[in-house]
Amino acid sequence: PDTAARATAEAREPTLTKPAGSLGRLEELAAWLCTWQGGHPPRLDRVRCVVFAGNHGVAAKGVSAFPPAVTVQMVANFQHGGAAVNQLCRTGGADLDVIPLDLDTPTKPFDTDAAMTEDEVVAALNAGLTLDLSAADLLIVGEMGIGNTTAAAALALALFGGTAADWVGRGTGVDDAGFARKRAVVEAAKALHGDALSDPLEALRRVGGRELAAMAGGVLAARRAGVPVLLDGFICCAAAGVWQALTPGGLDHAMAGHVSREPGHRRLLDALGKPPLLDLHMRLGEASGALVALSVLRGAVACHTGMATFAEAGVAEGGGS
Amino acid sequence: PDTAARATAEAREPTLTKPAGSLGRLEELAAWLCTWQGGHPPRLDRVRCVVFAGNHGVAAKGVSAFPPAVTVQMVANFQHGGAAVNQLCRTGGADLDVIPLDLDTPTKPFDTDAAMTEDEVVAALNAGLTLDLSAADLLIVGEMGIGNTTAAAALALALFGGTAADWVGRGTGVDDAGFARKRAVVEAAKALHGDALSDPLEALRRVGGRELAAMAGGVLAARRAGVPVLLDGFICCAAAGVWQALTPGGLDHAMAGHVSREPGHRRLLDALGKPPLLDLHMRLGEASGALVALSVLRGAVACHTGMATFAEAGVAEGGGS
Repeated sequence: PDTAARATAEAREPTLTKPAGSLGRLEELAAWLCTWQGGHPPRLDRVRCVVFAGNHGVAAKGVSAFPPAVTVQMVANFQHGGAAVNQLCRTGGADLDVIPLDLDTPTKPFDTDAAMTEDEVVAALNAGLTLDLSAADLLIVGEMGIGNTTAAAALALALFGGTAADWVGRGTGVDDAGFARKRAVVEAAKALHGDALSDPLEALRRVGGRELAAMAGGVLAARRAGVPVLLDGFICCAAAGVWQALTPGGLDHAMAGHVSREPGHRRLLDALGKPPLLDLHMRLGEASGALVALSVLRGAVACHTGMATFAEAGVAEGGGS
Repeated sequence: PDTAARATAEAREPTLTKPAGSLGRLEELAAWLCTWQGGHPPRLDRVRCVVFAGNHGVAAKGVSAFPPAVTVQMVANFQHGGAAVNQLCRTGGADLDVIPLDLDTPTKPFDTDAAMTEDEVVAALNAGLTLDLSAADLLIVGEMGIGNTTAAAALALALFGGTAADWVGRGTGVDDAGFARKRAVVEAAKALHGDALSDPLEALRRVGGRELAAMAGGVLAARRAGVPVLLDGFICCAAAGVWQALTPGGLDHAMAGHVSREPGHRRLLDALGKPPLLDLHMRLGEASGALVALSVLRGAVACHTGMATFAEAGVAEGGGS
């Protein structure tokens, strides 16, 4: 973290033509970007959005409202520009990459086996770790994967404790029977893997998924490259949460873009200590919530860099009454 | 309201390649725009932002952290592009007009007199009513006026009841002594004007201000022109609240862009029955909160109009599990 850049940003705010603190979280965002970009002024010239897709063995167990074939169909939709993420990248000004991860080979059902072998989880992590972020000012990672709220719930349970019921929600809109199966799968996974889940990376391997590992890899790559991260929903935050569970402060370069309707997301943001920028009742994933929040960051950067100071504008400063 | 356009928008949502309802409030926004624009698809090609400025007699009573001269100084800042509203109009894609209203003639102090004569309030209302909105897809009104949170508090008290303490906040950041004076001014106004405040338009004349009346005029002009309105903060909502106090549903064409840090704003939004899109701890006025919210509307329109349907994309629809 570049505390000098943060101090420069924080020192500029009270000189700008507005009451002190009156831009609220926009002021915090400008300082946060400087801290993790390692310089002042904050920049959002190149925003990268990377959506990873993976398939899940547990999807065969009736835990989702959609059939597993939808993962590959939605990847094609991303590639043809027809999904929400495409529209939101365009309006937000983000470059989109879509990275499908061995979609023909679902992970193993994690209620009866480890989801991935060590080679598999390393390959998935590397899909994110090897992103070239040298020209990026901000990274947003997103996901697609039928069944992946089940994996995220199991991972959040492993990383942050509680019960299956605390973390399992309706996902894309599963019915009551599917919801019960989903909870049962997460409970069975906890019973099966036991203490092995206390190691965050081992938990990622055993109950995560390829797109979760890749998002975690991307978030770590961003930390190394001096690129702040805007987090999306429940699945993204569960994956990124691995770094905070491993190391306090390991996710300080990441901001919560929004809180979704998936009930575990708010609990997860509380565990991460990250108040969300937006609460628009979204629950789509594929980076959509973070991309809407991106426009808040753009407003923050525009105000911080473009506003006149009191001295420049000849405006009298306030103070008292 | 165009209920057919709303129905068309609502019928399209479940055909788009996402779980039903998963875009949350973005789906509601698309339907709301159609309802009040009077057609489908929703459009945001031309967004008008109009900032009205006025001066207040009560500003001489030490109710603000800033001296009254700041109103005219900030208008110059708007005209030279140095204020937050300028940066946010640019990033949000809105055309800005700044309309100063007799800045050399403050309203009379409303704790000892009516703020405006009938001629004065009519002239101020007309500044908004006569806006040419024929080419507009959305209207945002904002304000600048040292002392105007005091006027807004007095107006909100007149329109929606309660006590002065319910509606008086720190505004731009007044100190304890100024805060006490501010409450006293609002209490004195209530005692002075009494039952005359039960008529919303008479309350606007007696305790409002020129920029509040102009914003109210703009909001009514938008209703007549078939243009939805995105509301800004406490002062904007107090002014627009006149129409809801006059006629139930009189503000149905307006959406709350954000809730500000000014404590009376949340109470006011509750009274108006309008949940805010954003809560970013802003308290600047000059349309800034609504302009940040504008980007959420842009995301909503982009998704609603640009996404592929399940049939177009060859994606299997969900249902149950």
